Amino acid sequence: MALNHILTGFKVLDFTHVLAGPAATRLMAEMGADVIKVEFPPLGDMSRALPTIIDGRSAYYVQQNRGKKSLCINLKTEEGKALVYDLIRQVDVVIENFAPGVAARLGIGWDKVHALNPRAVMCSISAFGQQGPLSGLPGFDYIAQAYAGVTGMIGEPDSAPSLPMLGLGDVNTGVHAMAAIGYALLHRERGGEGQYLDISLLDAYFHCHEINVALYGLTGRIPTRAGHHHYAVCPLGLFRHGDRHVCIIALDPQWPSLCNAMGDAGLASDERYNSNAKRVERAEEVIALVQAWVDRQPSVEAIIAHLAGHHVPCAPVMNIAEVCNAPHMIERGTVRRISDPKLGEFTVPGMPLRFSGFERDAPLAAAYLGQHNEEVLGTLLGLSSERIAALQATGVLHANPAT
Amino acid sequence: MALNHILTGFKVLDFTHVLAGPAATRLMAEMGADVIKVEFPPLGDMSRALPTIIDGRSAYYVQQNRGKKSLCINLKTEEGKALVYDLIRQVDVVIENFAPGVAARLGIGWDKVHALNPRAVMCSISAFGQQGPLSGLPGFDYIAQAYAGVTGMIGEPDSAPSLPMLGLGDVNTGVHAMAAIGYALLHRERGGEGQYLDISLLDAYFHCHEINVALYGLTGRIPTRAGHHHYAVCPLGLFRHGDRHVCIIALDPQWPSLCNAMGDAGLASDERYNSNAKRVERAEEVIALVQAWVDRQPSVEAIIAHLAGHHVPCAPVMNIAEVCNAPHMIERGTVRRISDPKLGEFTVPGMPLRFSGFERDAPLAAAYLGQHNEEVLGTLLGLSSERIAALQATGVLHANPAT
Repeated sequence: MALNHILTGFKVLDFTHVLAGPAATRLMAEMGADVIKVEFPPLGDMSRALPTIIDGRSAYYVQQNRGKKSLCINLKTEEGKALVYDLIRQVDVVIENFAPGVAARLGIGWDKVHALNPRAVMCSISAFGQQGPLSGLPGFDYIAQAYAGVTGMIGEPDSAPSLPMLGLGDVNTGVHAMAAIGYALLHRERGGEGQYLDISLLDAYFHCHEINVALYGLTGRIPTRAGHHHYAVCPLGLFRHGDRHVCIIALDPQWPSLCNAMGDAGLASDERYNSNAKRVERAEEVIALVQAWVDRQPSVEAIIAHLAGHHVPCAPVMNIAEVCNAPHMIERGTVRRISDPKLGEFTVPGMPLRFSGFERDAPLAAAYLGQHNEEVLGTLLGLSSERIAALQATGVLHANPAT
Repeated sequence: MALNHILTGFKVLDFTHVLAGPAATRLMAEMGADVIKVEFPPLGDMSRALPTIIDGRSAYYVQQNRGKKSLCINLKTEEGKALVYDLIRQVDVVIENFAPGVAARLGIGWDKVHALNPRAVMCSISAFGQQGPLSGLPGFDYIAQAYAGVTGMIGEPDSAPSLPMLGLGDVNTGVHAMAAIGYALLHRERGGEGQYLDISLLDAYFHCHEINVALYGLTGRIPTRAGHHHYAVCPLGLFRHGDRHVCIIALDPQWPSLCNAMGDAGLASDERYNSNAKRVERAEEVIALVQAWVDRQPSVEAIIAHLAGHHVPCAPVMNIAEVCNAPHMIERGTVRRISDPKLGEFTVPGMPLRFSGFERDAPLAAAYLGQHNEEVLGTLLGLSSERIAALQATGVLHANPAT
């Protein structure tokens, strides 16, 4: 079912797997693109084996691949390759996130794609980019994160760094890729040719250092992880109340408000603390002052309500259950319920791009492995049912409704 | 100087400040857009006061605002507002990251922008989105991070969560915004009208939960932070060597390789550990086995080289100095040197979007406050030098070359 959305009519041939690449094409599918996900027999995208799995069906796969068609084809056969080439001739976008060099070895590198279809935009996503000394390293989120100096900036200073337990790097790298593709399509729409996009986790992660890189470059100081209180702003950190934590932030404009909120208006004019630089200098004292006030409050909810009344930025650290059930999250569809034939209804993150001109939440479905072999090859390449059955029989095509 | 790039000829009127918004328009400036940054007297974008500051010049500001023109104008005067309206009539994109409601109160809400220029795309960036129970809360990265259930997923399980010491949320929200703008421009290029984009930190952060949300929704289990070893994959974590840490990952395909690399090929067939599910079940034992091997190695470098030889994903946790000086980072321009009249040469993250059709690293400069008042109002609105001087004298315009 074609959506009426920005990318309606655009075709994407999608060789991606697991997370960064599928996140990019998921967003494009939600914008109406006709995404043909190419999977390889016998198992397809390895995320079909990632948790949460119920009845052989992976919620991980469903979340990232709704609205895409699954074409399961053996690219190592001459027939399979020829069919893929015929598809490349028809699409607007080709995207892959193999290790660098693999796409070329499979016969679908940029040179080949460009020769087959000069208008096609091709995007490669990798951990470290297509060239350079580290480009051959395996492409896991946390590996690129460590090399980007991100891991080293997370955790208590006197112990091991902490790993964020979510796909910050992969998903946001997917967003970088999806963005680059959009601008490349815009360029093409204005008369330009197709082009090649080289997007990496390393670039996307490193791109997020807003202070650290320049601080080191200009002063030689090496910033490092600082636990749960920021090293350059004070107070900005997590304060404990019972077994919960609350984030409280006061930059210079909010410091007097926080002092008021803590019932100590005089503190605002205390010369020891009346600038962020001074407070960072005396961070231990400032943190102790705020913590002492927190300790006197009856509950996290009371802290939040009181500080909000004084326009002091604050937030409870919430767990996944609290977040998924928060009225704001549900009302806005930041968390949404989707429906799957095998998994039933369950919750996933909502579409983060909100366009006033288009509906936001189309009822998309995820495919079983090879579900659209016939539809894709029949519609786009005009193959007969007999031909498709023969390709299936010889293993060029594969399908598995149990996935 | 106009770049020859994808957005050459596109005009952006940029009311953003600090990080998420400026990151979006920075990327657009690097793609050749004519970005007019509107700042308010007397101080302009408050990031001009953020570290690192040398000689009154903020490297923070320079990093995020290279290639943009600065127009410093008092929007609370009738003349200032009229000039801004005239500019809105001429631009392709209007972008702001005030708290929800502020743009409308300033007279530049979507209704007004759309009425002035139906072709304009307008993007608002906020912490929680434009509507909903939490939309009025202050818009800091860490506040949205806590509400998105991200903070709670980072840190050791038995102590406070850890705050990542970099702008992961703001910068990536900026990328989401920049992406949405690109697709809205593509839509316009194909005959569509302008439209309104509502982008939030909360959406962008929550969007990164690749396992947690569905796991909770389908099983009721509430995943939480797990320190430096992943809760769903084993081994995937940080191992200590001396005062450093190394990230080692072995999913099912890599487990036999890791066993080999550790000199214990027999371990691969040990039935207690021969699937990820079993290893997660016995995570303590597996982690201890790997740590014991790490302990026997002479250095982090030796560990990395040895595991790389066995195709086991691994990485040293690097500090900012190590990262900024890594040959791969420099060779690829993931870290780059830029030049500023006051700060001299220093390092910032490179442009993360790499287009084969365009040069990547234009020599862009950051503006002092109001540096382009005359250029913008003279060129785009045809104001005479006398008129501009009069506006400057009455405080409608402002400039400060010392910033």
